Amino acid sequence: MKIGFVGLGQMGGAIARNLLKAGHELTVWNRSAGRADALVAEGAAQARTPAGAAGGDLVFTMLANDAAVEAVTLGTDGIASGRALHVGMSTISPDLADRLAQAGRYISAPVFGRPAAAEAVKLFVVAAGDPAAIDQAAPAFDAIGQRVFRVGERPSLANLVKLCGNFTIMGVVEALGEAMTLAEKGGVAKQTLLEVLTGTIFDAPVFHVYGDIIAGDKFRPAGFAAPLGLKDMNLVAQEANDRRVPMPALAAIRNHLLQGIAKHGEEIDWSVVAKVIAENAGA
Amino acid sequence: MKIGFVGLGQMGGAIARNLLKAGHELTVWNRSAGRADALVAEGAAQARTPAGAAGGDLVFTMLANDAAVEAVTLGTDGIASGRALHVGMSTISPDLADRLAQAGRYISAPVFGRPAAAEAVKLFVVAAGDPAAIDQAAPAFDAIGQRVFRVGERPSLANLVKLCGNFTIMGVVEALGEAMTLAEKGGVAKQTLLEVLTGTIFDAPVFHVYGDIIAGDKFRPAGFAAPLGLKDMNLVAQEANDRRVPMPALAAIRNHLLQGIAKHGEEIDWSVVAKVIAENAGA
Amino acid sequence: MKIGFVGLGQMGGAIARNLLKAGHELTVWNRSAGRADALVAEGAAQARTPAGAAGGDLVFTMLANDAAVEAVTLGTDGIASGRALHVGMSTISPDLADRLAQAGRYISAPVFGRPAAAEAVKLFVVAAGDPAAIDQAAPAFDAIGQRVFRVGERPSLANLVKLCGNFTIMGVVEALGEAMTLAEKGGVAKQTLLEVLTGTIFDAPVFHVYGDIIAGDKFRPAGFAAPLGLKDMNLVAQEANDRRVPMPALAAIRNHLLQGIAKHGEEIDWSVVAKVIAENAGA
Amino acid sequence: MKIGFVGLGQMGGAIARNLLKAGHELTVWNRSAGRADALVAEGAAQARTPAGAAGGDLVFTMLANDAAVEAVTLGTDGIASGRALHVGMSTISPDLADRLAQAGRYISAPVFGRPAAAEAVKLFVVAAGDPAAIDQAAPAFDAIGQRVFRVGERPSLANLVKLCGNFTIMGVVEALGEAMTLAEKGGVAKQTLLEVLTGTIFDAPVFHVYGDIIAGDKFRPAGFAAPLGLKDMNLVAQEANDRRVPMPALAAIRNHLLQGIAKHGEEIDWSVVAKVIAENAGA
Repeated sequence: MKIGFVGLGQMGGAIARNLLKAGHELTVWNRSAGRADALVAEGAAQARTPAGAAGGDLVFTMLANDAAVEAVTLGTDGIASGRALHVGMSTISPDLADRLAQAGRYISAPVFGRPAAAEAVKLFVVAAGDPAAIDQAAPAFDAIGQRVFRVGERPSLANLVKLCGNFTIMGVVEALGEAMTLAEKGGVAKQTLLEVLTGTIFDAPVFHVYGDIIAGDKFRPAGFAAPLGLKDMNLVAQEANDRRVPMPALAAIRNHLLQGIAKHGEEIDWSVVAKVIAENAGA
Repeated sequence: MKIGFVGLGQMGGAIARNLLKAGHELTVWNRSAGRADALVAEGAAQARTPAGAAGGDLVFTMLANDAAVEAVTLGTDGIASGRALHVGMSTISPDLADRLAQAGRYISAPVFGRPAAAEAVKLFVVAAGDPAAIDQAAPAFDAIGQRVFRVGERPSLANLVKLCGNFTIMGVVEALGEAMTLAEKGGVAKQTLLEVLTGTIFDAPVFHVYGDIIAGDKFRPAGFAAPLGLKDMNLVAQEANDRRVPMPALAAIRNHLLQGIAKHGEEIDWSVVAKVIAENAGA
Repeated sequence: MKIGFVGLGQMGGAIARNLLKAGHELTVWNRSAGRADALVAEGAAQARTPAGAAGGDLVFTMLANDAAVEAVTLGTDGIASGRALHVGMSTISPDLADRLAQAGRYISAPVFGRPAAAEAVKLFVVAAGDPAAIDQAAPAFDAIGQRVFRVGERPSLANLVKLCGNFTIMGVVEALGEAMTLAEKGGVAKQTLLEVLTGTIFDAPVFHVYGDIIAGDKFRPAGFAAPLGLKDMNLVAQEANDRRVPMPALAAIRNHLLQGIAKHGEEIDWSVVAKVIAENAGA
Repeated sequence: MKIGFVGLGQMGGAIARNLLKAGHELTVWNRSAGRADALVAEGAAQARTPAGAAGGDLVFTMLANDAAVEAVTLGTDGIASGRALHVGMSTISPDLADRLAQAGRYISAPVFGRPAAAEAVKLFVVAAGDPAAIDQAAPAFDAIGQRVFRVGERPSLANLVKLCGNFTIMGVVEALGEAMTLAEKGGVAKQTLLEVLTGTIFDAPVFHVYGDIIAGDKFRPAGFAAPLGLKDMNLVAQEANDRRVPMPALAAIRNHLLQGIAKHGEEIDWSVVAKVIAENAGA
């Protein structure tokens, strides 16, 4: 297929590369042009505007926040002016997803997985929107991930599921952070507790990946930076507010993210939540 | 081996039966005698005092709380007066575990798993204490569970790990409860969210088991009753207090347990935490 | 002075009336025109647009939220096109206050006090902005309140102080709600606890006013409706987020407001926070 | 009257001195004897056991915790063996108060006020128990405080009210701490915010006293040490647990006390809660 790709960050770059490797005809656009060089060297075309990447069958967007997606889609020479089906992978607000769907052909398809999973074609895609449109994008999804979940016909439902997933990751990090700090102050090494947990009923990637980061103090370099994590948790909070859902664990997580950023800067992984918990205990 | 078993509740009864099935010579004691009838019919002897169950190689205790364990161990005709190695499986305070170890030969060996896992010989045993004593108990552990974790030579460390594990379960329940409530109020069925989660990076028994309870509203009958869960979380809080560890997710969980018991009584599962979250959102 | 007044709700109406009583020449505007009738009968002129109320010396705005203030100020025929000094009394975001100051002559002057205090000329005015402009508005402040606090030359500082004050009110309500519920479940009447508190070191209006509401279950009619309170707490949360300030009591309050609105509707007083606390305890 | 006084710490010493000044015949006892020297020099007798201070009309106890009160009352040569009416001023658990009442003539009479208020005869006494017994103690209360509140005939009710009061103080400190940190990071000095608050609807000693400590960073020397504050909040939490009352603001406060002690040691004032809030914001 002729595929456009807008947003060549850590995740977007890896995904775009896999589309290219799978034989798709790729046109890329990124706000800061240098990001595209490697992909162009590998065979991608480079568009001069977002619209220039939206002339084929599909155009993916993978950007940092609502404002960026809105700008490349609805702005001058934006994606909405192209004929391609817009496949939004960014973690954006459900509200924006629904607005994008009113501006043109659009499905939401956020993914689960960190950069290493993206490179290894092991992402999970959560798709929502018109079923025929999802069918159209399916070959591209095959090239970038291991499985597609379809969660509804309203695009924003995929974004809501993605937000719930990211919140659940943070819920695990918060619980692990508190448990490991307590264990360590009581004489049990973090690694020992982690082995018991992942050796029993907690044997899932989310515990392995984040448990390893926490036990090994591997908060840098960030796989997913704390300000991005905070942005996502703020989107969750916005949904919780609009739908009147009290979420006290979310509140604890957001406060720990704020503290983590205030004390460790913007370049640390969002699992800094666990680091803050340890620090607050004087550990 | 000659094994005594004190405490024939839902968990203890299932474990004792497996010891009997494995060919061990079993003597049981329970405060309310009727609980022993079925096991006696299957070949167990019945002691008249806790000490009467402590005359062989090992004596297990599986009781509801510190007070019960203290009574059967250190009270008149208590286990401490017998010659058997005391293997404590109850979820008790680390403090009591260390006191039991001063009163006689004692190791802590709490387990992970609900009644169904106990029946299926799928428990996980977390053992701490003198390594030679753990070796001595190993054949019995083989008869009741699938794996033993050794976490240290001070018995109380196993109890601390157990408490951290139970807290982490509740951390997952809290996160799932908040996420599922938000998803449902936003138009995504709880079951759909659960399928995405367990189909991706959350594919572990703790998510399957508790996700199924929450999505299916299966809070009764209790696999583990809310007041017992609250007792455990209070033990965690006591440790957190003594060791100066702020634990905000623990606080949210305890408040939800209190609310759950206040509104739904003492007979509901400890995952009522998730039910309360939904109710507070008017869901 | 020639004074315009935009926004004739419960608070705005009472304030406008006091300006009229003090002899000022008043021109009013309200989105729904009926609200102005009583004041017009008492001598006020009625403008056809917000700009029509901004042709004199001062123009006050007292509206529900950022969007409303932005619309009447920066929209077509807005206040910013008039020559009057704009005195913003609404509880709006500090960000908007600074933008209003860029659009024309503007000071922020939010007030503390509920409708009864407004009627009794007992409001407290918190003013920030150009000192000469505050001097200009001083005679009008005298007509509506008992005291003016000057907190800085950047208008938004007054809004920040106002938000901090409203948050502190809610902090008191949260604490009173938890304390009274505990006391009552333990056998001490809410009123008895309140008498001890207000008779000792808690002898301030905030404890008398909200203690009386809580002890007397006087959550309706709302003096300040829960959705408005939630709006304010969300503005506080936005500031806390932008400035990286973890605020766990704020989180508890927002969750209780969400629950209160979810269960009791939009017409209840923001002190519903205390009602929710009692309900969660099964009281 | 012939009055005994047991417990000559910062508070107890000041109260005992006022009894002596008022002309009462005083016999004192303290675990570490040196504490009594000054009072003996001023005319007090010194007993050799707690019982030795319990031979007159009244015997006051003012001690750090349940264990200390239990030891001097129910232990060998304890107060319960004397004929004096026991007037318990310590902040103890309601449970212990009721047990003391079963061991002899006993009323609870905890006080509100810090050491400076004790010296100035400005304490508030909260009394509960047999009305005739409270009448008997009334002249002594007149010598030490400005007002007596009678809250019921079961002694423990006074202790519950005292705990609720201390919790409400901490609720104010938590709210002030969060508000002042937000204000300061936004450009408003803590002192400025405090002046607005105490100049409006927050004009009560609790805001003046704690606001001054927080704004002036006067956390040392402690008027009431953080570990004692934590002990009290733990007693509140025990009541909340037993009576099934979710208290999220209490949870935030306890976590901040734990963090404060973990990072600043045991000698800091319990208002360290506000210091921790500022630190967590990187302020």
